[in-house]
Amino acid sequence: MANKIAIFDSTLRDGAQAEGISFSVEDKLKIVKTLDEFGVAYIEAGNPGSNPKDLEFFERVKKLNLSNAKIAAFGSTRRRGISVEEDSNVKSLLSADTPVVVIFGKSWDFHVTDIIKTSLEENLEMIKDTLRFFKEKGKEVIFDAEHFFDGYKANPEYAMAALSAAVEGGADCIVLCETNGGAFPNEVYEITKKVVEAFEVPVGIHPHNDGGMAVANAIMAVEAGAIQVQGTFIGFGERCGNVNLSTVIGNLQLKKNFDCIPKEQMCTLTQTARRIAEIANVSLSDRMPYVGKSAFAHKGGMHIDGVSKASHSFEHINPELVGNERRFLMSEVAGRSTILSKIQKVNPNVTKDSPETKEIIDRLKELEHLGYQFEGAESTFELIIRKQLGKYRPFFELDHFKIIGEHPAGNEDFSSSAMIKVNVDGQVEITAAEGDGPVNALDKALRKALEVFYPALKEVHLTDYKVRVLDTKEATAAKVRVLIESTDGEDIWTTVGVSTDIIEASWIALVDSIEYKLIKDIEKKFKPYL
Amino acid sequence: MANKIAIFDSTLRDGAQAEGISFSVEDKLKIVKTLDEFGVAYIEAGNPGSNPKDLEFFERVKKLNLSNAKIAAFGSTRRRGISVEEDSNVKSLLSADTPVVVIFGKSWDFHVTDIIKTSLEENLEMIKDTLRFFKEKGKEVIFDAEHFFDGYKANPEYAMAALSAAVEGGADCIVLCETNGGAFPNEVYEITKKVVEAFEVPVGIHPHNDGGMAVANAIMAVEAGAIQVQGTFIGFGERCGNVNLSTVIGNLQLKKNFDCIPKEQMCTLTQTARRIAEIANVSLSDRMPYVGKSAFAHKGGMHIDGVSKASHSFEHINPELVGNERRFLMSEVAGRSTILSKIQKVNPNVTKDSPETKEIIDRLKELEHLGYQFEGAESTFELIIRKQLGKYRPFFELDHFKIIGEHPAGNEDFSSSAMIKVNVDGQVEITAAEGDGPVNALDKALRKALEVFYPALKEVHLTDYKVRVLDTKEATAAKVRVLIESTDGEDIWTTVGVSTDIIEASWIALVDSIEYKLIKDIEKKFKPYL
Repeated sequence: MANKIAIFDSTLRDGAQAEGISFSVEDKLKIVKTLDEFGVAYIEAGNPGSNPKDLEFFERVKKLNLSNAKIAAFGSTRRRGISVEEDSNVKSLLSADTPVVVIFGKSWDFHVTDIIKTSLEENLEMIKDTLRFFKEKGKEVIFDAEHFFDGYKANPEYAMAALSAAVEGGADCIVLCETNGGAFPNEVYEITKKVVEAFEVPVGIHPHNDGGMAVANAIMAVEAGAIQVQGTFIGFGERCGNVNLSTVIGNLQLKKNFDCIPKEQMCTLTQTARRIAEIANVSLSDRMPYVGKSAFAHKGGMHIDGVSKASHSFEHINPELVGNERRFLMSEVAGRSTILSKIQKVNPNVTKDSPETKEIIDRLKELEHLGYQFEGAESTFELIIRKQLGKYRPFFELDHFKIIGEHPAGNEDFSSSAMIKVNVDGQVEITAAEGDGPVNALDKALRKALEVFYPALKEVHLTDYKVRVLDTKEATAAKVRVLIESTDGEDIWTTVGVSTDIIEASWIALVDSIEYKLIKDIEKKFKPYL
Repeated sequence: MANKIAIFDSTLRDGAQAEGISFSVEDKLKIVKTLDEFGVAYIEAGNPGSNPKDLEFFERVKKLNLSNAKIAAFGSTRRRGISVEEDSNVKSLLSADTPVVVIFGKSWDFHVTDIIKTSLEENLEMIKDTLRFFKEKGKEVIFDAEHFFDGYKANPEYAMAALSAAVEGGADCIVLCETNGGAFPNEVYEITKKVVEAFEVPVGIHPHNDGGMAVANAIMAVEAGAIQVQGTFIGFGERCGNVNLSTVIGNLQLKKNFDCIPKEQMCTLTQTARRIAEIANVSLSDRMPYVGKSAFAHKGGMHIDGVSKASHSFEHINPELVGNERRFLMSEVAGRSTILSKIQKVNPNVTKDSPETKEIIDRLKELEHLGYQFEGAESTFELIIRKQLGKYRPFFELDHFKIIGEHPAGNEDFSSSAMIKVNVDGQVEITAAEGDGPVNALDKALRKALEVFYPALKEVHLTDYKVRVLDTKEATAAKVRVLIESTDGEDIWTTVGVSTDIIEASWIALVDSIEYKLIKDIEKKFKPYL
């Protein structure tokens, strides 16, 4: 397995240090599951010493049955002048109870003397002591040599001495951090090569993107012999971000024949990247290599002509290899087989060549063009397939609704209310409700009306509500995509709505959520008879 | 001048081939002026053969008095089997009447035989003939060797023969295009070096970013002897984009001592990038190296501590060198010293031990507890400080507002409208507006009312609107945090509001945005007197 590269994802730790990113415990658990399924080797999930909230996460993550990834907690070497056992950060790191511990320490002499203000000798002791402590507790220990490249350029002997201290302390892997992100690919190559030649312990690389060269720096380090790449899946991180692992994986696995993740997972690269963006509630850059919406979009006439004759004329890889798709921006052309499996879930008799398949693909393209995205909203997706296959009938008809927001409002500072009139098989129901915001009021009023006919809806409640502005140029007039996650205590499902009006987008997703629940119940109850 | 690098910007040509980008003639002229002022050497402004609208632009651009840049038009070699003089694309290229002409031609044998379907010999003739034609017309002629690196890897002799044909035709510069964007830095270095050694004519590089390595590839080509870099200022282009010139310029000029643009212009790098984004009507990525809003933003506590002691501890360059700024993000991990620097921006006399400092910190804690987050919303943060320090007085009083959403609504499927009554120094104004969604309607109605008193608000528009649900367990009843980004074409500022009601949260952020703008204008105008 000489070609094996360990992918180490730090979205939940270094990624959470990015501007605008903050994860709830639920978000973190979802990201862990997504990354594990995709097949990364390590997931660095927090710094328990700096963020006490992380401890709840570490308790809960232990209960997940992960298939590929080991969970790592991150922390500093002990502070100067105390023993490892006395150090409170070390203690909370230990209490995270993870199989892997990442310890970062200083390898740039200037940082030792001027930032943490200790002696060069004491810093080496801090590294050695801390690593040995965790090794004795039976941990797999990774040493992150912070600012290694800047350190090496300033004082190569000392930078190498920091690594030696880590190796003496028992490090299972020494990782060279390009912390400030300003190094050039050729220097990363040369310095990494010297380290690989000097030590028997495996070497890793941890680049940042301040010079826009993080991906190249990761690749050059691997060419020089590094076997672990630390980054974040879609490039979150301090300042300009960490190296984007989705790009690194594409480059190494598809072009350099390295083994980063299980082969069969490669075609889920795009989906994985989009799911992480969705959980983090940020838009994935359209231009992101391999996984961006525009990564295989062709606009120039000669490019479209070329790709139509031979795809590699203007594409560095086939987009299907990473689960992305080719798009011709002038004339939309369809064609995909991934959708077929979902169609066959509803009707196993439909094939690739059935006219229904083309109709559904056309309908999906139309909706995608409007701003829909189905990665995180498979229940809406299933409803669309049902509607196209005639396996659907509405559960109610809306007569009308009205929502009102007022400030000030009577005795209160602010009020939102909704009234709604629905019709179920000729029977009319009018209800009204107040809520925390217009969508909440509408949700309450709608369910109050429908529970009269469908008591099972009493079990349902919404567990998540996400709003994404699609076309930021227009700000409050932009299109919004609303994602709603619902549960009845047994299943969890997600639905989506798109509109320029947030209320209308929410309404579409609410209706889908309710209909999905009712169909699901019918299937469970009556499928044995059908 | 051995260290001189010619920066060749193709935002208006290759950049316009990006998804979502289209420029009016006015936009194009504005971008030309911006790039010329900044100091690039060449501006490639269109492909008259493929876009007849470009001819109007070429007429008008001649009337600009440019100080640094030469305007280039872009076109193909003549078609096979006809003479140069007969070729209609060549004719329109000539009619653009630019001092510089860029001719692209095939250098990958497969493209010659399978895409443009001609013989390898004829392609060489097409290159030679076309270049000679334009040289005889007195043009400076740049040859873009399309797919040069893929071509070289497939058939090095033929790729080199294509360059020889260009040189024979009289090329002033031969540019190696990494058209499909999938090459690696070491191969770009080696192949470029071979070309530089083989020809006396200057060599250029034109990389794309499909492997996320375009910047590194440009740098490596320069290290190998290339003296022209073709890209787009903020990375627009087909698929994943062209190389980002703002990053290349930062790397080459600040770190490698090359002379890309006039020294004194370097501190306008950020402003130039933002202006181009503004003209193109897209948001600049926060994480863009050198020029992004987050490029020098620090969130981790140890990073903030380090930068406070010595900026180069966690910054690859001083942000002032490129006209960007250092920011300490407000988060759970930010310390007291970060807050103090912001307080002192409003009142320099307040110290760490002033009672006001404690009051402000208490107020911030209270707001954070309610779900506020100030990283990314520094304008609201500044307003809070002003309110606590008594440096604030409201610009208007709200009497009340009301928003209504209806479905169906009259002749329309859906309608959102708002009415508002405000009072400015005793004068009352009532307005109403319809909008795309209730927040948009409220925004329109509020500004319509206030523009009567504050005409400067007409310059303001919202550029981003973000909604984050804070406590997802409650879904539509959860607290929401709304972030609004505004601009008046000169500055960009962000404000935040939190409430269980999305309308109220948006209202809070809208009011802050307007007040921040008005205070900012007063400061600019009257500070010299105070």
